Amino acid sequence: MMVKQREYYDVAIIGGGAAGLTAGIYCGRARLKTIIFEKSVPGGLATYTSEIANYPGFPEVLSGTELMNLFEKQAKKFGAEVKLTAIKSVDFISKEKVVSTFRTDYMAKTVIIASGGKPRLTGAKGEETFLYDKGISFCATCDAAYYTDKSVLIIGSGDAAIEEALFLTKFARRVQVSVIHDKGTIDANAIAKEYAFANPKLEFIWNTVVEEFKGEEHLQQVVLKNSKTGNLIPIDVDGCFLFIGYLPDTDLFKGQVAMNQSGYVLTNENMETSLEGVFAVGDVRAKGLRQIATAVGDGAVGGVAAEQYIKHST
Amino acid sequence: MMVKQREYYDVAIIGGGAAGLTAGIYCGRARLKTIIFEKSVPGGLATYTSEIANYPGFPEVLSGTELMNLFEKQAKKFGAEVKLTAIKSVDFISKEKVVSTFRTDYMAKTVIIASGGKPRLTGAKGEETFLYDKGISFCATCDAAYYTDKSVLIIGSGDAAIEEALFLTKFARRVQVSVIHDKGTIDANAIAKEYAFANPKLEFIWNTVVEEFKGEEHLQQVVLKNSKTGNLIPIDVDGCFLFIGYLPDTDLFKGQVAMNQSGYVLTNENMETSLEGVFAVGDVRAKGLRQIATAVGDGAVGGVAAEQYIKHST
Repeated sequence: MMVKQREYYDVAIIGGGAAGLTAGIYCGRARLKTIIFEKSVPGGLATYTSEIANYPGFPEVLSGTELMNLFEKQAKKFGAEVKLTAIKSVDFISKEKVVSTFRTDYMAKTVIIASGGKPRLTGAKGEETFLYDKGISFCATCDAAYYTDKSVLIIGSGDAAIEEALFLTKFARRVQVSVIHDKGTIDANAIAKEYAFANPKLEFIWNTVVEEFKGEEHLQQVVLKNSKTGNLIPIDVDGCFLFIGYLPDTDLFKGQVAMNQSGYVLTNENMETSLEGVFAVGDVRAKGLRQIATAVGDGAVGGVAAEQYIKHST
Repeated sequence: MMVKQREYYDVAIIGGGAAGLTAGIYCGRARLKTIIFEKSVPGGLATYTSEIANYPGFPEVLSGTELMNLFEKQAKKFGAEVKLTAIKSVDFISKEKVVSTFRTDYMAKTVIIASGGKPRLTGAKGEETFLYDKGISFCATCDAAYYTDKSVLIIGSGDAAIEEALFLTKFARRVQVSVIHDKGTIDANAIAKEYAFANPKLEFIWNTVVEEFKGEEHLQQVVLKNSKTGNLIPIDVDGCFLFIGYLPDTDLFKGQVAMNQSGYVLTNENMETSLEGVFAVGDVRAKGLRQIATAVGDGAVGGVAAEQYIKHST
């Protein structure tokens, strides 16, 4: 039988995106022995963005990967370790928290959940080819300016879809919205719905789902399918925005920290979860706006909260 | 009689520090006609800091002024105007908000309060000479590393003073605390008090107030005065931290938006104040941690909230 190694840390941060790396900067600088677990590439969701324009401090556009490399360098400079590995299981219930990989049990005085999440995809043909800067976008606040005077298609009819569609009408020449429901039915709240139907620039395409994404280098056409008739409807576009949900990466923590029904971790403004000594920061927590700027605010608060928790519990 | 000019904006942001400039970046990028009022120098309190080490994205230390110049450039790039002027009065009660200077009434659909504040000073002789990077500091999270193996004096005994004093014991060689009260009495909460008295590295100097700050280029000595005996007590130090309160700059808004008893503006996590269409971001709002990172998070949320408010109210 293999004997598992044990390693001891003050703080275990789960996820090396903008929020986790910021928490790492703060914990490292507070001289806490800090480890950041990242299962793929440090930088998280931001690394899928080719142009970051609205993170304060960078008036010249840079790529998400470039920015996240700076975050990582800064966290390491203050002594935080970045460990590229998958986590098998966690135990956050005990006072000493355990984060287990295949080989090692990492024992930590406190844990910061920063595992983020990702937008839900349609699963349609060609989708993987055009993700992010190739034409399929997930954030109008981020990408609307890029589509100035162009033609875009929105997929979805929930609050996010309709709010972002309305926002895009200020930039794009043409804004079409593919809705799965019958004519007149959208999932957004009553106010958004009223504004949407009053806006002459929004064109709804009812009873449709995405069949295929097509194009050369960049997305050029989205083929919709009428779910009642089966008819295929090709829509020529410059870009497509998917707002059909977001999947927080929280399976590991189920049954341990309190979450809402969508699987986001619930916290207060101090980033405290339902478990003492366990904090959550960034996209993974239930909150209104998911941006690098807000991830950074969360990460700073969570890092300092972790430091204070350790100070008061040892 | 002078006829006052009127100018019309979508968003008026009061205060051009990190939070206000971030809100300006977001509002400008959302194509809102945006004006940022700043009474002195853009950048706010951050410009008093000579070395910013923990704002994510800048692994090489830069000055607060350098960083804030980047914020300002970015806000202007997206079309936000920065207006250097004092505000005489405001009217936030009406649906159309009014920000008045001597010559002009600025009419805005929505307002973001980002007026910040500043740490309270002792008023002792020599204080102005040694503020910020000359030896009198206000943030242990920011400056503790600089005082590694050095000797520091804390002024104050409230929660912030004691928490930060405990934090500084991990860095400094010697940490003394000047307390105005009789021996054994401090203003901090019971838990902080317990840890403080149990920490052998904290030395309390009871019944004292600051009489004078002395030094050549940099602070070298703080002269305390025993308030009972009148005796002067010279303390040689490398640095001094003042934690005797923080004064939010909210006089203009009194009687209009709800504040707590210290004068901080009350908001929810969406940065909404008690008045519809009025938001507050950054150091001016009641919250736990005041850092550039948290100001940026607030500014992004407030900027997007202002955009959504306008979309839903016109």
